[in-house]
Amino acid sequence: MSYNLLKGKKGLIFGALNEDSIAWKVAERAVEEGAEIVLTNTPVSIRMGTINQLAEACGAIVVPADATSVPDLENLIEKTMEHFGGKFDFILHSIGMSPNVRKGRTYDDLDYDFLTKTLDISAISFHKVIQVARKKDALNDWASIVALSYIAAQRTLYGYNDMADAKALLESIARSFGYIYGREKFVRINTVSQSPTPTTAGKGVLGMGDLMDYADRNSPLGNATADDCAGYVLTLFSDLTRKVTMQNLFHDGGFSSMGMSRRAMTLYEKGLEVEYQDISKR
Amino acid sequence: MSYNLLKGKKGLIFGALNEDSIAWKVAERAVEEGAEIVLTNTPVSIRMGTINQLAEACGAIVVPADATSVPDLENLIEKTMEHFGGKFDFILHSIGMSPNVRKGRTYDDLDYDFLTKTLDISAISFHKVIQVARKKDALNDWASIVALSYIAAQRTLYGYNDMADAKALLESIARSFGYIYGREKFVRINTVSQSPTPTTAGKGVLGMGDLMDYADRNSPLGNATADDCAGYVLTLFSDLTRKVTMQNLFHDGGFSSMGMSRRAMTLYEKGLEVEYQDISKR
Amino acid sequence: MSYNLLKGKKGLIFGALNEDSIAWKVAERAVEEGAEIVLTNTPVSIRMGTINQLAEACGAIVVPADATSVPDLENLIEKTMEHFGGKFDFILHSIGMSPNVRKGRTYDDLDYDFLTKTLDISAISFHKVIQVARKKDALNDWASIVALSYIAAQRTLYGYNDMADAKALLESIARSFGYIYGREKFVRINTVSQSPTPTTAGKGVLGMGDLMDYADRNSPLGNATADDCAGYVLTLFSDLTRKVTMQNLFHDGGFSSMGMSRRAMTLYEKGLEVEYQDISKR
Amino acid sequence: MSYNLLKGKKGLIFGALNEDSIAWKVAERAVEEGAEIVLTNTPVSIRMGTINQLAEACGAIVVPADATSVPDLENLIEKTMEHFGGKFDFILHSIGMSPNVRKGRTYDDLDYDFLTKTLDISAISFHKVIQVARKKDALNDWASIVALSYIAAQRTLYGYNDMADAKALLESIARSFGYIYGREKFVRINTVSQSPTPTTAGKGVLGMGDLMDYADRNSPLGNATADDCAGYVLTLFSDLTRKVTMQNLFHDGGFSSMGMSRRAMTLYEKGLEVEYQDISKR
Repeated sequence: MSYNLLKGKKGLIFGALNEDSIAWKVAERAVEEGAEIVLTNTPVSIRMGTINQLAEACGAIVVPADATSVPDLENLIEKTMEHFGGKFDFILHSIGMSPNVRKGRTYDDLDYDFLTKTLDISAISFHKVIQVARKKDALNDWASIVALSYIAAQRTLYGYNDMADAKALLESIARSFGYIYGREKFVRINTVSQSPTPTTAGKGVLGMGDLMDYADRNSPLGNATADDCAGYVLTLFSDLTRKVTMQNLFHDGGFSSMGMSRRAMTLYEKGLEVEYQDISKR
Repeated sequence: MSYNLLKGKKGLIFGALNEDSIAWKVAERAVEEGAEIVLTNTPVSIRMGTINQLAEACGAIVVPADATSVPDLENLIEKTMEHFGGKFDFILHSIGMSPNVRKGRTYDDLDYDFLTKTLDISAISFHKVIQVARKKDALNDWASIVALSYIAAQRTLYGYNDMADAKALLESIARSFGYIYGREKFVRINTVSQSPTPTTAGKGVLGMGDLMDYADRNSPLGNATADDCAGYVLTLFSDLTRKVTMQNLFHDGGFSSMGMSRRAMTLYEKGLEVEYQDISKR
Repeated sequence: MSYNLLKGKKGLIFGALNEDSIAWKVAERAVEEGAEIVLTNTPVSIRMGTINQLAEACGAIVVPADATSVPDLENLIEKTMEHFGGKFDFILHSIGMSPNVRKGRTYDDLDYDFLTKTLDISAISFHKVIQVARKKDALNDWASIVALSYIAAQRTLYGYNDMADAKALLESIARSFGYIYGREKFVRINTVSQSPTPTTAGKGVLGMGDLMDYADRNSPLGNATADDCAGYVLTLFSDLTRKVTMQNLFHDGGFSSMGMSRRAMTLYEKGLEVEYQDISKR
Repeated sequence: MSYNLLKGKKGLIFGALNEDSIAWKVAERAVEEGAEIVLTNTPVSIRMGTINQLAEACGAIVVPADATSVPDLENLIEKTMEHFGGKFDFILHSIGMSPNVRKGRTYDDLDYDFLTKTLDISAISFHKVIQVARKKDALNDWASIVALSYIAAQRTLYGYNDMADAKALLESIARSFGYIYGREKFVRINTVSQSPTPTTAGKGVLGMGDLMDYADRNSPLGNATADDCAGYVLTLFSDLTRKVTMQNLFHDGGFSSMGMSRRAMTLYEKGLEVEYQDISKR
């Protein structure tokens, strides 16, 4: 079903790898809601994934860019403006990667070159995208910029490692630049803190399956899916949320406001029973 | 412009006094977006205000109810279900009043009967509305309940008095009941923390005009108006935000994430200059 | 070991029932650190508990008072000032009770007279104590007021019921009054959000034992005990924390900043295994 | 006055430049309270400042180290352990610098090499210190690590630039490493979010004087001084706060919980009057 919520709007979407990607779902739904879009990802991700299928389905072009490279971003923004014939209205940043996580370096044994890369790819790239867009005056007044975040920015989760710090930095950038870009051009900048989601990136996190179960049982409405997330991001791109800025918005079925649900505790208690039996057998 | 965002939805709206009321704007916009609504307010407010005009314009009925009275709420919910021919989909709670503020009792000289009334009218009424709705199984799965709040729940503002405590309680009720109603019926419950707004209630707060100027200059996008708020509340009633619950959502042009803007500081510095001149004259 | 951290200070302590009480530990430690104290509790609690033993050990007097009664509090503050021969330096508020919890009324079936009592006993009593102290000018400049809170004020925990709302209100009162009393008399007001603690009150909460296990495994330093809490509260009464006010301070071994620890997840996974075995047997 | 609060404890203090430095005050007070200390700073800061005077007064040694250099930190930790004859008990991290701020690069025109340096010096150095300490098993059980932060991590302040993002990253590192180091060695890690303070570093921030006035008038207890801060940090190094970890602790006279004080509003209103007069003259 379409509301034409983004009729006449144009936007740039980072991070669609394959159909599991949240960015993929946002792209599809944005087009259904009347938007025109440009897609981008790194050359490697474009080769590895299936973004060209998405582009075809969406009537979009794909412009390769490494979001950590300012020249790449300059080229991207120029090409996007050319394609649209002028300024545009929204940007989605859905990018995150930790070489420390990939290489199995634990948080008390971080490689600092890797950490610099984690921060550059997952957080500073967000600043670069916005700074380049602003310098090129690429966005219409009241444009909307969204990045995807995770609750690890506020609370430590076993295994999430230096990505937690990257997300904290990402959310800070949204606030800092939200002030600057807002006061001058009425551009709003927010982060969406999404439930753990079984995307290609999400699946790489240690113990992700069990964590998702835990999050799901602790969320009164259950985990938010990638589809749910796309719908929510649409509202943030629409004209109905023009005065929302510099916020980190939890889209997580209630998880962030839960201490402990009965449903999760019931399971935990089963684990406790086993533990006590194991101890009594010793 | 309408998106038909609430097509087929039915809702109950508390707190529309006159055309300055946020609830009034929400009612108008909800109907524009395809919803059917029932309006309610206290008998006194119905007489003092112009809600019947709104009802006529919206094709709505008005059911008088004191939101602190459980029997009144039971009657209201029954009448609303009768009117709709069954369950409904959203509730707006836009109610707040402090006898201590009205009577000029400062926070260090509160009348405790008045405080009980402040809490009952401005916060506990929210619990009563939800508890009655749930007992009568009045809401469809995935229904959405919203109450209006203010940042005084987190940060102390001169003159806001015991309404700050009432808003903190209100936001806690949204979380507590959001868990219960969410896990069973997928009903989501949130509060919207709105910019200071020149409604009839807002105008009663001490020094409101200057505070609004201060908030406006500290909000990169300026204060959110009642119209803006209505648009935002619509997104929360829509199917696009189904996984958002137990949240307090700032709708304030960025104010909540600001420490000090250049624009506000410029004005503050003018005040400082005057202050120093005054001191040097002594 | 004593540091003489409170040498020359005088304070009033609410809520010592028996030796499991946090207030009991605070009283003992405060005296060890050189303070003089006055103890108070309701007449019923004084009969039920063993506060007179504590008073004897501490060289303190006990003044009965119902903290919801302004006349009782007026008498208490007067007696305390008489006993000390003037103003005093600190107050501990360790009071909480929910008739809804006691009578097994769930959060979607609250009795509203009970709710009013929960709020009056557990939160508004804090305002009353402070307002009476201020009207009688009972506190020295830079005095320190502390109330005990719990993380349920921020995050919903199964079974904590309307006490969550009471704690949210309590923390708001600390902020609101902290502003007023701070600007005039430099009195600071804070809440300490303590780990779940096996006091007489704590033991009454549904599923407390399992919840404590869960909190403990999710706290890198383990749950804070009543003894730990007493030590922490002493620092807040001391002159070393004079500029800390209007804060809610987590004293919980790190629980409040945890999403999920490996230790808790290991147990949760044992529960998951059992769950999957049970399902596969069906 | 001394309480012997740190009797028998040994610690390492980063960042004492001159007698305005918070680290300087912490060093002095720690020694007064019975601690032995080692001081460190970069070779440049040691030359520019007067740390050797402090060392003499404190009976301490000074070990030069660039906190962004892992080899320097390894040498520092080794020398510190040699000096103390074994493990030690506390670390203070009081380090921050932004080349973007120094060179006048605004937040929408950041130099990214500078940004990397800002983050490395002001935040990642904290991770490096802790990781090196942990790898060398340099800290006793229940040791305490504190870094100094600022409210810009949560709320945007005009002129604070990329230091805001660095502070957000710093606070996240405290949480992430607090979990790891806590569960294994009971080491606690916290940040203290201090009032704006007229240190040599603080004075470099744009419009600092007016901002300090604003913060002071909005803090019921006034701004916390460097001396106040030292006292507070002592409590965090003491055994009385053993269960506090992974927290960001506001030490700011109440500023963080204020929306708007009467005292600040009075001044703001004077600015408003001037503004309206100016407008009416046009």
